[in-house]
This record gives sequence, structure tokens and C-alpha cells, in this order.
Amino acid sequence: MSERRYAILGTGALGGFYGAKLQKAGLDVHFLLKSDYEYVSRYGLVVESIEGDFTLPQVNAYHSVEKMPKCDVVVVALKTTQNHLLPQLLPPMLKDNGVVLVLQNGLGIEEEVAQIVGNVSVIGGLCFLCSNKVGAGHIRHLDYGQITLGEYTSGYYAGGITERMQLIAADFISAGIAMELAEDLLLARWKKLVWNIPYNGLSVILNARTDELMAHVHTRKLVEQLMHEVATGAKSSGRIIPDSFIQTMLDYTVKMKPYRTSMKIDYDERRPLEVEAIFGNPLRKAQAAGVNLLQINCIYQQLKFIDAKSRVGK
Amino acid sequence: MSERRYAILGTGALGGFYGAKLQKAGLDVHFLLKSDYEYVSRYGLVVESIEGDFTLPQVNAYHSVEKMPKCDVVVVALKTTQNHLLPQLLPPMLKDNGVVLVLQNGLGIEEEVAQIVGNVSVIGGLCFLCSNKVGAGHIRHLDYGQITLGEYTSGYYAGGITERMQLIAADFISAGIAMELAEDLLLARWKKLVWNIPYNGLSVILNARTDELMAHVHTRKLVEQLMHEVATGAKSSGRIIPDSFIQTMLDYTVKMKPYRTSMKIDYDERRPLEVEAIFGNPLRKAQAAGVNLLQINCIYQQLKFIDAKSRVGK
Repeated sequence: MSERRYAILGTGALGGFYGAKLQKAGLDVHFLLKSDYEYVSRYGLVVESIEGDFTLPQVNAYHSVEKMPKCDVVVVALKTTQNHLLPQLLPPMLKDNGVVLVLQNGLGIEEEVAQIVGNVSVIGGLCFLCSNKVGAGHIRHLDYGQITLGEYTSGYYAGGITERMQLIAADFISAGIAMELAEDLLLARWKKLVWNIPYNGLSVILNARTDELMAHVHTRKLVEQLMHEVATGAKSSGRIIPDSFIQTMLDYTVKMKPYRTSMKIDYDERRPLEVEAIFGNPLRKAQAAGVNLLQINCIYQQLKFIDAKSRVGK
Repeated sequence: MSERRYAILGTGALGGFYGAKLQKAGLDVHFLLKSDYEYVSRYGLVVESIEGDFTLPQVNAYHSVEKMPKCDVVVVALKTTQNHLLPQLLPPMLKDNGVVLVLQNGLGIEEEVAQIVGNVSVIGGLCFLCSNKVGAGHIRHLDYGQITLGEYTSGYYAGGITERMQLIAADFISAGIAMELAEDLLLARWKKLVWNIPYNGLSVILNARTDELMAHVHTRKLVEQLMHEVATGAKSSGRIIPDSFIQTMLDYTVKMKPYRTSMKIDYDERRPLEVEAIFGNPLRKAQAAGVNLLQINCIYQQLKFIDAKSRVGK
């Protein structure tokens, strides 16, 4: 069994699911919680999952990082809108040779984390997961679950497949989680944005599910144009996303059952939207390379307005 | 007094207002009506106006063009979404040397009209008018009212100020309507789009008034970027809109009282939106000159989706 000790930073729909799976597989897992702390420290975690339901009556729950043991792997499973907390949270819970595993959406987050934790390694993880938190300590896993790992290197040059990635992947695989290892984290991040940028953005702005966006000729066209703009952004980082990948994403989405995107769920629940991680950072990265992504910029500014208005109304 | 006979095609907030003003000034005016025909033919028109209320107990009301006398000036005051009716409506009511005065929003409409009426002259009119139809034959005039006239020429080269324009302007001025004569209709149309494209589009997409769009830093920026894209479109037609004009429009809008745009009113009333006239035609005109207006394209496709969805829900 793995000797690595895991911390889960953010025990919600994503962190709660993966953390519970790791503990169920026998790993040593420590959960940081905020609003659900009292409940989870008394009653543990419940996971309803398409792969089988299970309960963990007892988990290591913490309300403050100071009380947590130093961990080998700190899994960042907060929404990126909470990342202003990372400078306080991360350093106290990390072992000297530890790893931060960033399971968040968007671009450039690993770079921000690396600046906080100094010479600790940072690995990015791209999650393909449908899950919701339906109550305190209660996660409902609806579909998928695979994670793609990529090693972060300063400047995001392709880091290849490292031993660290393999060891962490082995722990997750032992917990029944499908894993993929990517040689180039930045390429993997841009590729995920090919889907996330059009569907997350338009689902919120136009109050629409994926099937509605694909059924209407003009939004179908706009989705495709936005995907090509993401590829243009990737190219400004020296990463090539072929047209065939875009076609695959379009075909895949047409075949999916009607889907409410994660940003739309956040919006409907009146939570802050991850606009900067998913839209602002890619825009700025491309712009720094002299490339203006005009249609993504239009979506970005609309989302900033919608996000601000939604929080004023709260 | 003018010997010109006027037909008003579309007796709503705009056509009803201008037509009533012309009749009140003693001109010979003939109104085509659809849903309000019975009411107006019995009770006439009522105009509540910031310039003074008045009633016309009796007007020349028609339900079909066949019964109308041939007119010297046919004022097209329908929404552009009704323009598929023009080939039936226009020819029967026009004298041989008549004029069609197009009081509609957007770009390229005069060209469509000229194709229908052959060798009759076409004049474009840009209305700066705030008015609503509040009931059958009942118009409420809230603000402004000026019309800018411009002569249409095949290919939209600058037509200069013609005698026809001056005669029609004199009739309108006699009715207390402020008139401006433009030497270049296409330039005037593009200049009006500098305001119409950002504010009409974003007010519908983001469910916002002009003051909200200007108060938020990101939509304020997007408005400005869209205005510059309109200027890029104008340039592709060989028309120059200086930056100072854009700055004037921004300053002017900040100083305006909170304003619900005409497209937002159409949307809220679940009427079809003038997306093709205001967005589609300028996009296609620029594209034909090899220029892609990407942010306007994004707004256009969003509006097409919203318009279609709104009408399905009706």
C-alpha cells in the first residue's frame, strides 16, 4: 500500500469524491473542510455513485490547516475563485518534498501555485467528472471520473512523464480512478479549453444546455468558431490542436445527453464563476504572445458582467 | 401647402407618430393598418407627446393597399422583420415618380427596396425617436424625434443633397419635426450603427439598460470595442468614422438617463428582433469587402439564438 499521505483541500463535489475513493482504497487521507466540518467530523462522508454507493463513517476532518499533519500530496480541489486563500493554506500542510496536485479548471493555475510553494513540485490534473454535492458530506457521482495528469515545469515546457506522476497515478488507479498521463501539461490544458470555453461560456450567457447550443445553427457555428479561437490561442503557446480534435469534440457533444455545464450550475446556484481561470488567463496568455482572441474576449467581458450582477443580486 | 400625398406603411410607434404629425400640419396622409384598422378607422389617432398632446378624430385608414390612392411619398415604417411583405405592398401605392422613404434601422434596406420598386427613388431616413404604441391608435412620444435624410444611389455612393430630399424635409419641418440632410446615406447609416450595435445587442443578451452597461468596467470596454469594430466595418465601405465620434457616443450615453433600447423593448414584448438589418447586413457587407467583424459576429450569433428561442416560447 502507498505510504503517501494525502490532503484534500476543498471537500466538495470533486475533492470529496476523489478523497473518499482514496480513503476507501486504504490510503491515508486528511480532509480540510469549511461549512461542512462539524457534520463530516461526526458522520463522515457518503458517496452515491454510478460505480456503487459507499459510506465512510469516519474521516480525518479538519477545520484549520494548522491542525493537519504534513502531507506528501496536497490535492487542490477548491474552485479557482477561492485561490486567493492558497498562500495561507498550502505551505503549512506540505512536506518538504511534497507535491501539490492541482485538480482545477483553466489555464496558468500551476504557475500561480508554484510561486506560492517554492521548490515543491506541482502537478496539474484535468478532471472529467460529473458530480454534485447534494448535502453536507454527501456527494453524488453521476458520470465519468477520469483524471489526466501533467507535470508542471517553469515556463510550461513539456515535462514528460515523471516518476512522481506515475506514483500518484498508481495510488488513484488503486482507488478505481481511471488515469491518463500527459507529456505536455499545457497542451492538455488548452485542449480541455476547446470544450470548456464555448460550452461553459455560452451556457451561462444564453441560459442553454449543450443540446440546445448544438441544435441551433448559429450557436453551433459560434461554438465551432470559439473552438478554433482556442486552437489559435494554443498555437500562440506553441501547441498545435488539430482540426480533427475540434471535430471530435463537436461530434462527442452532439452525442452526449443534454448537459448543464459546471459553470451553468455555479451560476444557477449563485456561486462565483471561474471566469478568470477559464477565460481571462487564456486571453492574457495569448495576448502576451501578441494574439488577440476577439470572440473569446467578447464572451469573457459578458461573463464578467453577468458574474458581478449575479453576486450583487445575492 | 405641400401637394404631396403621403402613405404611411406601418402605423405603430414610429409611423403613427410621424404620420399624425404630418396630417396635423395639413398634409394629405393615408395610413395602412393591420390589427388596429377597425379601431383607428372609427376613432382616429391619439398622440401623447412631450411636445403637446393631440387627437386626430378622423384619419384615412386602410386595411389593404388596393384601396389606397397612389401616393407621392410612401413612408416605410414597419419593423424590418416585416420587409418580406414589401414586394406586395409597395408597388400598388406608389405614383410613377414617387419616392419611398425608408424610416428603418440597420444597413442595406434601401438597396432591397430599390430592387422592388425599380426606377422610383428611394430615400433613407434615420430616426432618433423614443416613442411607444400604448394601445390601438394610441402613440406615446417620450423623447427626441429628429430624422436624418439621405438619398439612396445604386452602390451607395454619396448622393449629395437633392431637391427631393429638400422638399420632403420641408413637409416634415412644417409638421414640427427636426430634420437633418446627409450627403452620404451610407456613412450616416454606419454612424447610427456605432450606437445601435453595442447597445441594442448587449441590452438583450445581458438583460441590461444602457446605464448598467456603462457602469461596469468590462461591458463599458466591450461597448467601446464593438464601436471600433463598426468603424472598421464602415472603413471597409470606404467611410471614415473618427475616434472622436466614438468618444462622443460614449460620453453621450453616460449622460443619458437609464435607457431600455428598442431591441430590448421588442424582446421584452416578445416581438421578432431586427437582427438581420442591424447585425447581419453590416457583417455581410464587411465580409464581402474581405473584413471579418469578429466580436459583432459573436453578438449576432447569440442574438439569432435568443430570437429563435424567444419565438418558440411564444
